[in-house]
Amino acid sequence: MSNGCPTVLTRLSLNQETIRQWSLPELVDGCARAGVRGVGLWRAPVQHYGVAAAARLVRDAGLSVTSLCRGGFFTAADPADRAAALDDNRAAIDEAAVLGTDTLVLVSGGLPTGSRDLRGARERIADALGVLGPYAAERGVRLAIEPLHPMYAADRCVVSTLAQALDLAERFPAEQVGVVVDTYHLWWDDTIGAQIARAGGAAQGPERGAGSRIAAFQLADWITPLPEGVLLGRGQLGDGAVDLRWFRERVDATGYRGPVEVEIFNPALWARDGAEVLAEVVDRFTAHVG
Amino acid sequence: MSNGCPTVLTRLSLNQETIRQWSLPELVDGCARAGVRGVGLWRAPVQHYGVAAAARLVRDAGLSVTSLCRGGFFTAADPADRAAALDDNRAAIDEAAVLGTDTLVLVSGGLPTGSRDLRGARERIADALGVLGPYAAERGVRLAIEPLHPMYAADRCVVSTLAQALDLAERFPAEQVGVVVDTYHLWWDDTIGAQIARAGGAAQGPERGAGSRIAAFQLADWITPLPEGVLLGRGQLGDGAVDLRWFRERVDATGYRGPVEVEIFNPALWARDGAEVLAEVVDRFTAHVG
Repeated sequence: MSNGCPTVLTRLSLNQETIRQWSLPELVDGCARAGVRGVGLWRAPVQHYGVAAAARLVRDAGLSVTSLCRGGFFTAADPADRAAALDDNRAAIDEAAVLGTDTLVLVSGGLPTGSRDLRGARERIADALGVLGPYAAERGVRLAIEPLHPMYAADRCVVSTLAQALDLAERFPAEQVGVVVDTYHLWWDDTIGAQIARAGGAAQGPERGAGSRIAAFQLADWITPLPEGVLLGRGQLGDGAVDLRWFRERVDATGYRGPVEVEIFNPALWARDGAEVLAEVVDRFTAHVG
Repeated sequence: MSNGCPTVLTRLSLNQETIRQWSLPELVDGCARAGVRGVGLWRAPVQHYGVAAAARLVRDAGLSVTSLCRGGFFTAADPADRAAALDDNRAAIDEAAVLGTDTLVLVSGGLPTGSRDLRGARERIADALGVLGPYAAERGVRLAIEPLHPMYAADRCVVSTLAQALDLAERFPAEQVGVVVDTYHLWWDDTIGAQIARAGGAAQGPERGAGSRIAAFQLADWITPLPEGVLLGRGQLGDGAVDLRWFRERVDATGYRGPVEVEIFNPALWARDGAEVLAEVVDRFTAHVG
């Protein structure tokens, strides 16, 4: 190809929430037709279709599942809620194993209602990782802590930076706990270059032997104004403020050669024809990422 | 007082945007009646009233101006725009001096339209600080870099953490450039305790002789869901996720004894009677900060 980046384009994965108007069969068919070889799946639509059936569907089309969203929500203080969360995460790990992906993305959880104890919530995440890490690794799945943008710290995820995610992950073996690098959440951070290098193992020294913590690399652009609730305002690649190629080069510089997953939550994309959106994603990926 | 914190309550300052339904004379009268001794002012209403007249009004009521909002917007790439920004900031410094405040709060500016160059934008802020710092210090005014929440990085301020603000500020003498510690912008940061200590001079060592960088300490609470545009969703003290007392104790532990300014942007407060809102601010301040 004349753009000089066939390798990167072959690593493009489509997270299914980007084109949520598609059913799972439509997603698999659409990706196969477009030459996109990986899909990132979500638990609810997979459960709706049937986990084993979904695994077969993807495999039979020659695709692979690059990640499953999502486990987590570890911050409840109530013991019964915490036990339920652990059970649900074990189920998510089992589903990831059936789907053949090695990555379960974690949205760690916000503050419990009425709580202001960020430190306590963060420690409960570590407790849960300690319990679930071996269970996941035995099934070939890695728990991938996703630092979410600080605007979600209260209600979704008290892990807000890559440094913080790595501080958590490094308390556990690298084959059990990794991190997600998502441009939408991390683009603003002036230390992100150094933290990506750290995540890739560069700052750990050979004696650590820890290997890379980068379990997933996800892309979305940052556009303004943010919508009410700030959940569904992600931008199509190239429409916003993020230097996507800079990110991809930094992640690749650590030796990462895994999937590059496009995950955009935006009702304007959901209102369009799915194949048209995917073609646009591929074009934008080539122009801004490859 | 029975709550044991008369000292902190005497340091309460009301930023005028918290009760923007009040005219400047109403603000001064309302604060004087409520025993609130400091006010944080904004340039537009001060200019509307007249800068010298505003200074007299505040002084004659026995109040002091704790800060002026705002200078900044240093990130333009166009030379003419940059020159205009410097001129406007010199005017803001002059106004601060007339008002008798030693603190000009800076909103440093977002990315220029179409730009993705965060590093370049941040360096242009440093350039502007180098030009304006001596001008400000000669007039008894300190430029106070306010790190804004990362959700404003694209369109308002590319300085997103206290660490980053200090990295910038420390390139200049402490009497020229300081920082603003605002709970709304910084509460989510797991390194904030250490960075507050650094801002207070604790981490710099006596040989630096730099003194504290904390030019202003502002309070608002974090509530969800965020409104569209995410500008006017700040919470009344005690309504949200921020451990305000923890912040105040950390700031005071550095030796800071300056104003504690309440700055809440929330249309629900603007729709109410100003005196009632101020009484509530005082009550909440006593309960959650003192």
